[in-house]
Amino acid sequence: MITSIHNDKLKLIRRLRDRRGREREGLFVAEGEDLVAVGWEPEFVLVAGEDVEPELLDFVSTLGSGTRVVGVYRQRWSEPGGDLSVYLHGVGDPGNVGAVIRSAHAFCDGPVVLGPDCADPFSPKAVRASMGSLFARPPARAGFEELPGTTVALARGAGTPLADVEPRPPLMLCLGSEREGLPEELAAAAALRAEIPLRPDGPESLNVAMAAAVAAYDLSRRMADHA
Amino acid sequence: MITSIHNDKLKLIRRLRDRRGREREGLFVAEGEDLVAVGWEPEFVLVAGEDVEPELLDFVSTLGSGTRVVGVYRQRWSEPGGDLSVYLHGVGDPGNVGAVIRSAHAFCDGPVVLGPDCADPFSPKAVRASMGSLFARPPARAGFEELPGTTVALARGAGTPLADVEPRPPLMLCLGSEREGLPEELAAAAALRAEIPLRPDGPESLNVAMAAAVAAYDLSRRMADHA
Repeated sequence: MITSIHNDKLKLIRRLRDRRGREREGLFVAEGEDLVAVGWEPEFVLVAGEDVEPELLDFVSTLGSGTRVVGVYRQRWSEPGGDLSVYLHGVGDPGNVGAVIRSAHAFCDGPVVLGPDCADPFSPKAVRASMGSLFARPPARAGFEELPGTTVALARGAGTPLADVEPRPPLMLCLGSEREGLPEELAAAAALRAEIPLRPDGPESLNVAMAAAVAAYDLSRRMADHA
Repeated sequence: MITSIHNDKLKLIRRLRDRRGREREGLFVAEGEDLVAVGWEPEFVLVAGEDVEPELLDFVSTLGSGTRVVGVYRQRWSEPGGDLSVYLHGVGDPGNVGAVIRSAHAFCDGPVVLGPDCADPFSPKAVRASMGSLFARPPARAGFEELPGTTVALARGAGTPLADVEPRPPLMLCLGSEREGLPEELAAAAALRAEIPLRPDGPESLNVAMAAAVAAYDLSRRMADHA
């Protein structure tokens, strides 16, 4: 039973809160029973009251009071590929990155590909938002110019509604940051440009995780119909 | 210039952090320039450095350091209605409620209808997640049995894919809580039951805000095609 905050495992868990610590160690943390239950083989797991004093686990957890289980895992990355996948460019919010990993897992066979300036998918918020899909479908890393498949830029004002995009695999849905969208040069360089039609009296944009879910649903459904 | 934390406006803003305070006053707070810029006529607005000392505004804001504008507004509620709208039952996460208000604004003409045990749409997190759509399309309150239109229960295992639901208005999409979904008796009482098909190797479920966005997109698009 760990009874001191100076314990090496607890100190490691604290270091893994920061992106730099995670990158240096190549590890990350999943907090809570639901997540740890679906995780890979962990480096180690700490259970409150069994392996560690509950207050000490609370102290190192980002969930705070009442955390019952924390697991430490080695990071895994996939290679881009599949008939349908999602590329994110400059999506800095870890909750959005995690949510896209979850939605893509529901509709795509390829991993989410993270381009420059995206939040770390192994940050506590992203891990939590992915709800276990991070374990089932580890993300990939690549620049826009390295993407396999037919790139489809989701861009406001593209003119072509998403429903008019021919669902011919392999397709790579490309989305940009919440505020600025995809950089113009990338949207121009994509093989196809499309948009999700919003009501004229509607909002200016969708949240990036919503847009990814809607687009992946639409294309995956029509791909299945054509298959 | 407000220079004391004992100022009545600042004390009001603090009280409006709590649901009970909001319900008692019938008011709510929008924080940040983006939101205040799209808001209704406010009860009052406080600008850091003009109306109030910046540190004092930081102190009452849930955004914390660097908040530049806070507006206080009277709550408005809509009546349920429209050709397409979303009903939420027991969705307790305010971020999800706000996100659904934003997505519904993009695809539906009716307001989001909040049933029992939903998070307060006027809480700071919900207001922020709605990104101004709360102002454009104030939510409604009703119980399931009072809903107008043809109720479509989104329920896992419903058997019927959403794409098979005939898009004949008025439709009321009904979604339950993140963990439990719609209570079984409500799903059974709905006019129609449908599900969003997920990959067999995919996650167990979608986030409720993602599911609402996908379903509202699918039905709105097909309603427009049939119109």
